[in-house]
Amino acid sequence: MRVLGIDCGTEITGYGVVETCDTSREPRVICKAMGEIRLLKAETLPQRLDRVFRELTAQLELWRPEVVAVEEVFYSVNAKSALKLGQVRGVALLAAARLGLPVAEYAPLRIKSSVVGYGLAQKEQVQFMVARLLGLAELPQPADVADALAIAICHIHTAQTLTLQGAVR
Amino acid sequence: MRVLGIDCGTEITGYGVVETCDTSREPRVICKAMGEIRLLKAETLPQRLDRVFRELTAQLELWRPEVVAVEEVFYSVNAKSALKLGQVRGVALLAAARLGLPVAEYAPLRIKSSVVGYGLAQKEQVQFMVARLLGLAELPQPADVADALAIAICHIHTAQTLTLQGAVR
Repeated sequence: MRVLGIDCGTEITGYGVVETCDTSREPRVICKAMGEIRLLKAETLPQRLDRVFRELTAQLELWRPEVVAVEEVFYSVNAKSALKLGQVRGVALLAAARLGLPVAEYAPLRIKSSVVGYGLAQKEQVQFMVARLLGLAELPQPADVADALAIAICHIHTAQTLTLQGAVR
Repeated sequence: MRVLGIDCGTEITGYGVVETCDTSREPRVICKAMGEIRLLKAETLPQRLDRVFRELTAQLELWRPEVVAVEEVFYSVNAKSALKLGQVRGVALLAAARLGLPVAEYAPLRIKSSVVGYGLAQKEQVQFMVARLLGLAELPQPADVADALAIAICHIHTAQTLTLQGAVR
């Protein structure tokens, strides 16, 4: 299974492609790609949204994931920030929809629990555990990229749990 | 000058195409098209965003306006509503950007002042004045469509004022 996780942000949008690898005895996850889309203050809002759309579409076409995973939005941010984040998120979801890819959403607490085992983990803990689970030599930087990988890992863990539950029945 | 106004909404997104018509002695504005994109509860969020994008893109390709005009967002809504609205707005701005069309934004008070002459006008007053300015036999329905036409008219009035100011200098 290959999943592309996206961590939407108004300044930096991170993405990461994670795949299950069953060649070893125990199933593990590997990282196929990761990156960030850093928006510039010199760009107008429509230009920024166009760049997020083009860059995510290019990654989705390149990696052809079975699923796109995103974070459910955390509503405690203020209305102004929520609107700005919503604009980027809308474009990210559209990129998946245009290519006919299903989108799975996970709550921040669940993503952190899935990766660190603790829902209120700090950003550094997420970066550390993502690097460890994926066997990366260095911590994924910036934190937005680690978050995108964590979202993808969360989807894989969830899918594996559902498969195990199905096997037990 | 031809302008396509968009009134983004999480349930209904209205649009309207307005053009200046200089054949009569005094410059007036006419309506070339108007419509609504009504989202269905049965659709997933990515499907809804995809439909808004496709329908707006089709209208933009059909009418090829010189400018796309949208409302600046009113921040007093709560964060949850702002996020939902932002997702639709992001996709609308992207549709303009993908076609290389410039986007102009106007504050709600300015739009109402431009059409009704009063910034705190009610929806019905906007519908009435939009119908009158455009010479429509019926009130534009729903109010979202009247708002989209009002946004386009606001852009035209603003552009005409700037032209007059330029002529005076």
